[in-house]
Amino acid sequence: MKRMVRVAVDAMGGDNAPGQIVKGTVEAINEREDIQVILVGKEEAINAELSNYTYDKERLSIVNANEVITNEEAPVMAIRRKKESSIVVALNLVKNGEADAFVSAGSTGAVLVGGQLIIGRIKGVERPPLAPLIPTIKGVSLLVDCGANVDARASHLVQFAKMGSVYMEHVVGIKNPRVAIVNIGAEEEKGNMLVKETFPLLKNCNDINFIGSIEAREIPHGGADVIVCEAFVGNVILKLYEGLGSALVGKIKSGLMSTTRSKIGALLSKPALKETLKSFDASEYGGAPLLGLNGLVVKTHGSSKSIEIKNSIIQCLTFVEQEINEKISIYIQEKE
Amino acid sequence: MKRMVRVAVDAMGGDNAPGQIVKGTVEAINEREDIQVILVGKEEAINAELSNYTYDKERLSIVNANEVITNEEAPVMAIRRKKESSIVVALNLVKNGEADAFVSAGSTGAVLVGGQLIIGRIKGVERPPLAPLIPTIKGVSLLVDCGANVDARASHLVQFAKMGSVYMEHVVGIKNPRVAIVNIGAEEEKGNMLVKETFPLLKNCNDINFIGSIEAREIPHGGADVIVCEAFVGNVILKLYEGLGSALVGKIKSGLMSTTRSKIGALLSKPALKETLKSFDASEYGGAPLLGLNGLVVKTHGSSKSIEIKNSIIQCLTFVEQEINEKISIYIQEKE
Repeated sequence: MKRMVRVAVDAMGGDNAPGQIVKGTVEAINEREDIQVILVGKEEAINAELSNYTYDKERLSIVNANEVITNEEAPVMAIRRKKESSIVVALNLVKNGEADAFVSAGSTGAVLVGGQLIIGRIKGVERPPLAPLIPTIKGVSLLVDCGANVDARASHLVQFAKMGSVYMEHVVGIKNPRVAIVNIGAEEEKGNMLVKETFPLLKNCNDINFIGSIEAREIPHGGADVIVCEAFVGNVILKLYEGLGSALVGKIKSGLMSTTRSKIGALLSKPALKETLKSFDASEYGGAPLLGLNGLVVKTHGSSKSIEIKNSIIQCLTFVEQEINEKISIYIQEKE
Repeated sequence: MKRMVRVAVDAMGGDNAPGQIVKGTVEAINEREDIQVILVGKEEAINAELSNYTYDKERLSIVNANEVITNEEAPVMAIRRKKESSIVVALNLVKNGEADAFVSAGSTGAVLVGGQLIIGRIKGVERPPLAPLIPTIKGVSLLVDCGANVDARASHLVQFAKMGSVYMEHVVGIKNPRVAIVNIGAEEEKGNMLVKETFPLLKNCNDINFIGSIEAREIPHGGADVIVCEAFVGNVILKLYEGLGSALVGKIKSGLMSTTRSKIGALLSKPALKETLKSFDASEYGGAPLLGLNGLVVKTHGSSKSIEIKNSIIQCLTFVEQEINEKISIYIQEKE
């Protein structure tokens, strides 16, 4: 019998909580039978939202949490003080083995800090990176680290490369994924101090398929499967993806409305255009896992709607089924 | 009488030299009467190209240079050894006052190193940044530094902000330009070590309009006029702009060709779409000036066609007419 995967979901996190979070949870439950969700947050508010839907009640439960950590709070302080917050309560469910994974659209800082402090790192992992999938013209690439560890060291980046390879191979299904380091030129001697120090270390890793440097220009063209970079750079890449995508789409829409001729053209081409742009929308690919923890933590965008929540919950299935953490653990400990 | 601006152009630099360089030069000469160009490079090759065009011969001359510096050569070595290269010969024309500006689509490293070694920095300027204009939905922003000084210090970034302000105000004509530092969150306490150190210094500058942090997401939406960042980050931003733009346009084109209905739509909306995408094409905005040198050096993209060369040459006019270097000099020395 297939194992039931249990996901704790932060019902209070993000701009659209609890409405869209509860909706996405119900959608996930209704789409997959091998999933069980524990909604963590203010019970009354969650029940009010749940009353709008029909779903398999056996696979959806609520754990009450009266506090909420906001984006404005300092993460470490918030995690230490707000023991009754949805994030802390949910992370404890994972720690205690009552859930396999945690999904939150709440404060990134609190989720990252809480994940490390409460669940803890896999033995040997120095820094757990945040690793979202980003769309390319060939499919998707994994961007690692996109915001968890600013001012990381070379040894951290090497671990990011290894953990990212495991994820791409076993969750996304890319055999022997191509690993590249973000650089400002293709040659080995190019780069800043961190990249120059990391490059030869990656070159010496026999357990990953390191293809060298990747310039940012090649990322959207699918130049590598695992894109390794320091968190500041990764965050800039991820956010520019969002910003440039929305700016261009806005420009195109207003451009198409500029003449009568183009308006008719727009009407005819709308379905095809919509499909195209959807394939380049990062939110289609679920949330970003925090790799290297003793449990799965998935951070989704603060503006997540039900679709992102649903995708993030379903993403946990593959992660757990493929025993990614067990694989990472073996990888990091044996091959360091 | 209006002053004639003299621009030395590297006829041998870039993927399309000398053909497109010569073509762009002739176009610039034919468009503006207050410009004089000295084409620097292999005389015979330049003359062969020039024979295809008609133009005012009084305003176009050739200075022979037999050597060419390639992208593969180590910049410092190349500048020191290849005294007869088009880059070194042209930079000496600027140094000796025979030209006001230098435009090159050749090796970025050689142009940056050569600019500093041969022309030299304005007194007080610690590091000259490369500062291209990038398109936004509101117009353009200046990205400074996009590749000249990796691993820069906080004091360098403060100077980038000041020089960038002068440029945006007097060349682009934005009154009291909004200056922001690229960051991974909007709050003052966010960031890596460099940004945390630079932020309060910028906040204390009374001579610039510092508006705080900008997340990469807001850059294409025109969130600031002067975008300050370290060269590695700036290079990633610039190249991702290019890569994401071309990837999305490719996606959209193939999306529009996917059904008969959308094909007809595409035909009708093509002129409007083309106009829209053109406004988001970085090459429309000329080259990137290297700010803070005792003379103007403009680096254009290695793949520049005649349009970029023409725009880069014409851009020199405003720079010289507005006495940007004199303004930078006063700004840096008086207000440090």
